Amino acid sequence: MHPGQFQITHTDGQARRGELFTAHGRIQTPAFMPVGTQASVKSLSPQDLNDIGAEIILGNTYHLYLRPGHELVARLGGLHTFSSWDRPILTDSGGYQVFSLSALRKLTSEGVEFRSHIDGSKHWFTPEKVMDIQVNLGSDIMMVLDECVSYAADWTYTRDSVSLTTDWARRCLKAYPPDSGSQLLFGIVQGGFFSDLRTLSAEEITALPFSGFAVGGLSVGEPKEVMLDILAHTVPLLPGHRPRYLMGVGTPVDLVDGISHGVDMFDCVLPTRNARNGTLYTSQGKINIKRQEFKADESALDPACECYTCRTFSRAYLRHLYTARELLAYRLNTIHNLAYYLTLMRRARTAIAAGTFASLHREIQGVFKGAEKMRED
Amino acid sequence: MHPGQFQITHTDGQARRGELFTAHGRIQTPAFMPVGTQASVKSLSPQDLNDIGAEIILGNTYHLYLRPGHELVARLGGLHTFSSWDRPILTDSGGYQVFSLSALRKLTSEGVEFRSHIDGSKHWFTPEKVMDIQVNLGSDIMMVLDECVSYAADWTYTRDSVSLTTDWARRCLKAYPPDSGSQLLFGIVQGGFFSDLRTLSAEEITALPFSGFAVGGLSVGEPKEVMLDILAHTVPLLPGHRPRYLMGVGTPVDLVDGISHGVDMFDCVLPTRNARNGTLYTSQGKINIKRQEFKADESALDPACECYTCRTFSRAYLRHLYTARELLAYRLNTIHNLAYYLTLMRRARTAIAAGTFASLHREIQGVFKGAEKMRED
Repeated sequence: MHPGQFQITHTDGQARRGELFTAHGRIQTPAFMPVGTQASVKSLSPQDLNDIGAEIILGNTYHLYLRPGHELVARLGGLHTFSSWDRPILTDSGGYQVFSLSALRKLTSEGVEFRSHIDGSKHWFTPEKVMDIQVNLGSDIMMVLDECVSYAADWTYTRDSVSLTTDWARRCLKAYPPDSGSQLLFGIVQGGFFSDLRTLSAEEITALPFSGFAVGGLSVGEPKEVMLDILAHTVPLLPGHRPRYLMGVGTPVDLVDGISHGVDMFDCVLPTRNARNGTLYTSQGKINIKRQEFKADESALDPACECYTCRTFSRAYLRHLYTARELLAYRLNTIHNLAYYLTLMRRARTAIAAGTFASLHREIQGVFKGAEKMRED
Repeated sequence: MHPGQFQITHTDGQARRGELFTAHGRIQTPAFMPVGTQASVKSLSPQDLNDIGAEIILGNTYHLYLRPGHELVARLGGLHTFSSWDRPILTDSGGYQVFSLSALRKLTSEGVEFRSHIDGSKHWFTPEKVMDIQVNLGSDIMMVLDECVSYAADWTYTRDSVSLTTDWARRCLKAYPPDSGSQLLFGIVQGGFFSDLRTLSAEEITALPFSGFAVGGLSVGEPKEVMLDILAHTVPLLPGHRPRYLMGVGTPVDLVDGISHGVDMFDCVLPTRNARNGTLYTSQGKINIKRQEFKADESALDPACECYTCRTFSRAYLRHLYTARELLAYRLNTIHNLAYYLTLMRRARTAIAAGTFASLHREIQGVFKGAEKMRED
């Protein structure tokens, strides 16, 4: 199996189950990618990630470019060797972070100038530059540089942005043409919250020879119904034989919603960030481990879960660790939340093969009913 | 083997190798006890502690009394069940923390009043109370309440303090007489920095039926030579057939020094606290992982070490994690520093059996030569 090969093994409605091959092995889809911003999924070791069954993780180009630097990572053998993670890695293009984290950015058709959120130093990203960085990082899947517009962006601004994103996608492909290496390159469809611009962007991007296609620019503050409308409109515009990646999304319900529309890959900081805030996903819904009610609770965090945290510790102990600000709390909570997400993906794959995905979809919607009103992303 | 039984299997000069039996199994001595202040050795899981070969850990009565509370811990099955650590645990009496951490303490012959460092609430420790707390915690080895005087204390103050500590030791034994349960009770010899008062305290404390004897009140700011003088004076005053525990000490050199004087057990926050500050112990001496020189260093932290950190990651990656303030840094550094300490104890036991301890003693003194001038405790 050569890198980039994607086999759909089962379908159930729009939902698909499949396998994507990369230079560091196979990913089963639907897949959730834990976020390892700075070459580390916060608080976890590669051993922990293996134990919970992670098959691919995400690294952030913006952060790794600033620290420790892509040239240093290349010199040290690439991101896999550097972080001792020998399974697939996807790197984003850094575009999203430039627009959300850095101060004083200046956008031109050539690229984007920004200041580091670490030390204020000035930097310059172009499509060619972010390809160079990602080649140095040695990720299995690279993403094109794009502009992610805000929910507030109007039609005219968004139309111009779609043109820019298409132009940059072409420049990325020129800098890293198909078959120039074993790293895969995915295109990104933008278009904000305008159906016609999503159609335009999808037409332009899917005309290009990418190994996979992402839907970007969602979960940026819009109501959930709007996100679902745009998703339902956009996914059918993507080629069926390539993996489809919904970027930066989302809650467990968002994931099953996405899968029901035919999405194959997801990433999100929610499970890891929430873990560090004490918000934990369980088969009974979301709980906050800080709450007084867990003070003497001897039961497992989630009796339905088989992760190290749930096999080993009581809610009372987890509450104590969190309350006492013990470092172990962050790791145990993160192990559990990611195990919840990865188990959900495994269940989705099984359900798709069995033709019962609709039932799993309803179950997850039921578990988190109400919780969706207070979405934390 | 019943709890409290202590067998010396080998001697080499004053150094002893032995086995102490507790309700949760055997401890090989000389032993180092990682400090798990709040029912957690900071950043490590019980699995991590097993992996590095920890045989006993320490819990702090003062902290556990304040949070989560000894009655809650008892209700949840004791400290072992609560924290999922099924090997031996020693708890201190809380005395040292009352004197070092809490504000506005008030000492009387009856006990000590103090304010919580967490919320300022007022509390009262007596010898009977700290026995009750430790019985609730269910530790394998309990310590008597004592007064730990400062390096500045004069002879008269220290003499009165020795009387108080002896009186409290008797009251602890009355509250928990020998054979009243499977928890062991150790006495503590104080006497500050006056040889005659150390002799007086040792005479009074060793006349009582404790399962082991600790030397307290050292490593509180005195020069290293003074500590060694007091240690050399005090250890021979302790009965040879009982375990000897040097409390709150120390550096790797302090440990081999202590062993050479016949000490069997140690605890100290140095390896764990230093790990979190990036200061790491290696077979080549101490290094600070933050340093620029490690930026592109692909070698293992300590090629002579077999811990997960050294087997898996480069110095460059460890430096990156520390510099980027990644949570994983604290765990990987802690695993290594404790592995260093526990390996040193294992090597000491082997050397004592082989009659080569003096050579190990010189080796460790050589490795950390100079470093001792900047002791961090």
